[in-house]
Amino acid sequence: MPYFDAASAAPLHPVARQALLASLDEGWADPARLYREGRRARMLLDAAREAAAESVGCRPDELVFTPSGTHAVHTGIAGALAARRRVGRRLVHSAVEHSSVLHSADAHVAGGGSVAEVPVSSYGAVDAADFVREAAVEGTALACLQSANHEVGTLQPVEEVAHACREAGVPLLVDAAQSLGWGPVAGPWSLLTASAHKWGGPAGVGLLAVRKGVRFAAQGPADEREAGRSPGFVNLPAVVAAAASLRAVRAEADAEAARLRALVERIRAGVRAGVPDVEVVGDPVRRLPHLVTFSCLYVDGESLLHALDAEGFSVSSGSSCTSSTLTPSHVLRAMGVLSEGNVRVSLPWGAAEEDVERFLRVLPDAVAGVRGALGAPTEAGGGVPAGDSLVVDALGKRCPIPVIELAKVIGDVPVGGTVTVLADDTAARLDIPAWCGMRGQEYVGETEEGRYVVRRTQ
Amino acid sequence: MPYFDAASAAPLHPVARQALLASLDEGWADPARLYREGRRARMLLDAAREAAAESVGCRPDELVFTPSGTHAVHTGIAGALAARRRVGRRLVHSAVEHSSVLHSADAHVAGGGSVAEVPVSSYGAVDAADFVREAAVEGTALACLQSANHEVGTLQPVEEVAHACREAGVPLLVDAAQSLGWGPVAGPWSLLTASAHKWGGPAGVGLLAVRKGVRFAAQGPADEREAGRSPGFVNLPAVVAAAASLRAVRAEADAEAARLRALVERIRAGVRAGVPDVEVVGDPVRRLPHLVTFSCLYVDGESLLHALDAEGFSVSSGSSCTSSTLTPSHVLRAMGVLSEGNVRVSLPWGAAEEDVERFLRVLPDAVAGVRGALGAPTEAGGGVPAGDSLVVDALGKRCPIPVIELAKVIGDVPVGGTVTVLADDTAARLDIPAWCGMRGQEYVGETEEGRYVVRRTQ
Repeated sequence: MPYFDAASAAPLHPVARQALLASLDEGWADPARLYREGRRARMLLDAAREAAAESVGCRPDELVFTPSGTHAVHTGIAGALAARRRVGRRLVHSAVEHSSVLHSADAHVAGGGSVAEVPVSSYGAVDAADFVREAAVEGTALACLQSANHEVGTLQPVEEVAHACREAGVPLLVDAAQSLGWGPVAGPWSLLTASAHKWGGPAGVGLLAVRKGVRFAAQGPADEREAGRSPGFVNLPAVVAAAASLRAVRAEADAEAARLRALVERIRAGVRAGVPDVEVVGDPVRRLPHLVTFSCLYVDGESLLHALDAEGFSVSSGSSCTSSTLTPSHVLRAMGVLSEGNVRVSLPWGAAEEDVERFLRVLPDAVAGVRGALGAPTEAGGGVPAGDSLVVDALGKRCPIPVIELAKVIGDVPVGGTVTVLADDTAARLDIPAWCGMRGQEYVGETEEGRYVVRRTQ
Repeated sequence: MPYFDAASAAPLHPVARQALLASLDEGWADPARLYREGRRARMLLDAAREAAAESVGCRPDELVFTPSGTHAVHTGIAGALAARRRVGRRLVHSAVEHSSVLHSADAHVAGGGSVAEVPVSSYGAVDAADFVREAAVEGTALACLQSANHEVGTLQPVEEVAHACREAGVPLLVDAAQSLGWGPVAGPWSLLTASAHKWGGPAGVGLLAVRKGVRFAAQGPADEREAGRSPGFVNLPAVVAAAASLRAVRAEADAEAARLRALVERIRAGVRAGVPDVEVVGDPVRRLPHLVTFSCLYVDGESLLHALDAEGFSVSSGSSCTSSTLTPSHVLRAMGVLSEGNVRVSLPWGAAEEDVERFLRVLPDAVAGVRGALGAPTEAGGGVPAGDSLVVDALGKRCPIPVIELAKVIGDVPVGGTVTVLADDTAARLDIPAWCGMRGQEYVGETEEGRYVVRRTQ
């Protein structure tokens, strides 16, 4: 039963399992205690910190363990912003950061701070010069840039940005949740966050590194543990397992990355060849080795996920943190790409080639099944022109119905004529222009809220 | 090798271990996902929540899992205070709460709130009427009272206080970290917090229950997990293990409590019989079944811990959260009891009677060894009176030296004469009056800071 959602949570790595079991017996006591069980726990904690710091590329005393990647991000951003409050209260981040960064930014704004969001290309990457220009604006307390995007796999120009931020004297926090298993983050970043269950470590462990010399003022109630930066009794068995598995996956990372990269190439090509009206999104070259995302016209993502699940494939759609909200993912929105029928495939360590091949065999029928159930057009309408312009009322209809209705009638207006789609599902804002791009029709614009005008050009 | 520090962290219960192992394979995926691994994780999470809620005595939708007991306290206090900000910004708590409560209170004061601390008796319990009087003061947003004290084991009158708080319309948060394994907290409390590794569950799991109808506004960056009250990917295997082990320890709690209560009685009697100049502190009746604390005159706690560790006994001294700070525990201070040579014995589930007996055999020599090394007096001085008054300069000398110096010269002044001790170790403020009480001498007072006057009365 192939699981293809490693970017959400990876199954436990055998080394993590082994280390966890061993430290359940050795590492349950309080490492702050002076008796033998405490000393043993302290030794395990120190060793785990050293191993993790080596993998991150920082000093052990720069690294603390948090209860999750989300905690690392919340804590890192809040602490860095508070420490530079005198400099200013401006936070800069890319438009495609993880929700933990965006929620921290919202909390910052609610507390009186300001935020500047740097847009991304249609591949999902910031332009390094654009990002640095924003970061260098006076009053910027902190800049945040992910190492790689969690939804589309695109790498960000983190190294270049880190150098420029250092020159500008602005600390850079890198959310490395998706990439740390594959290798360290290059460049002189100031803060770094990560999450163990993304690389096959256990749940319950995040990393927060704060380089020496970077000002940091932990927020919230004080606590003496983890250098005062992460409160609560440390989850030591999980921490030990996290550090051990990070080292283990790193030892195999280059070979496994090459293998998975080839499988992802195979998916990119196979999806395009096997599924009509599909858009593979994200940077085709500067990307994570194991992750590929595509969107299927006239398809509702949730139905497609169910169809694939019925065939035994576990994949995700849109953002992991927005999937329950029914709004299109903020990442796809920022990229301006098709959001309907969105599927993210993220291969776990050791994913089997035969599973990938079977996925490619199963996918076309799964997509066709959803399209059929939704009454999607199989080709452009081509009926008798009904007049120079048509209005399609898709109010109250959910994605992808508005686009399907548009596609059904575009042939009913003459070349030069227009179709106006009325739709209140916000996905239409993304998907109608994307459809126009895929079909070579002209997107005139949203003339008023929820009123989308398309001109037939062919 | 007997471990007698269960109040700090209990070794993993066999049921916790078994549940943890099972759910490592079944519960690593994201429970928010729709595919089978996610659904399986969701089922495990729902079942764990139901089991834990049943043990707590609340509805499943009133309970969230947090990364630690400390997180539960920080989150619970911040959320309850914020939700009642219009009512007022006053926080009431007992003087002997866990440091996570005190640190939350400090953060509240730093943010402009106010705090009222309710004193405790020499047994460490609040008077219910005193507590309720403070809680009922207008502008009180929240009252916090532990179910049982973590250092001396004294039970608080939580049920009575909960009823009165409900009548007064003031929410009560009960920190049940030390008692939840032994039984549910009675009474109509509003919020409850606990920590799994105290009852033999794994590290990395706290509980926060917020009863329906209690106003609550989660603070910090938003996150959709755990009803918006505990951010980050849930540590599901640990959560499952926590719930399963809570149920397991509850099934044996009455029988084990009776057994350990008898062993603690044996320690209380054995310590008094075997060690001269010892004070057993905490309520002798209304107490946790497994915990006993005593203080030894003329002994330095850390040396005694090392001596006991060398004999194979793991015990703690003072508060778990203040032991590294060299100041006497705030709990012993609030109780006004002797703090020097303080030892907390907290028996884990299944503690063996023969280990307790060996502890009682070993303890007198361990105490005598430390006293000998410190040059403690074996009896009151009794030399030729040197005059009506004496001054002992113990500045720069750490506890228990000031008390030892006092004891050495008290016989050198006549009955009615005074000894003045100069000491800058803050433990003297607690230990010199305590010594006077134990020796039947009169404590005149601290006439100026660090200047303690004692009158010889016998």
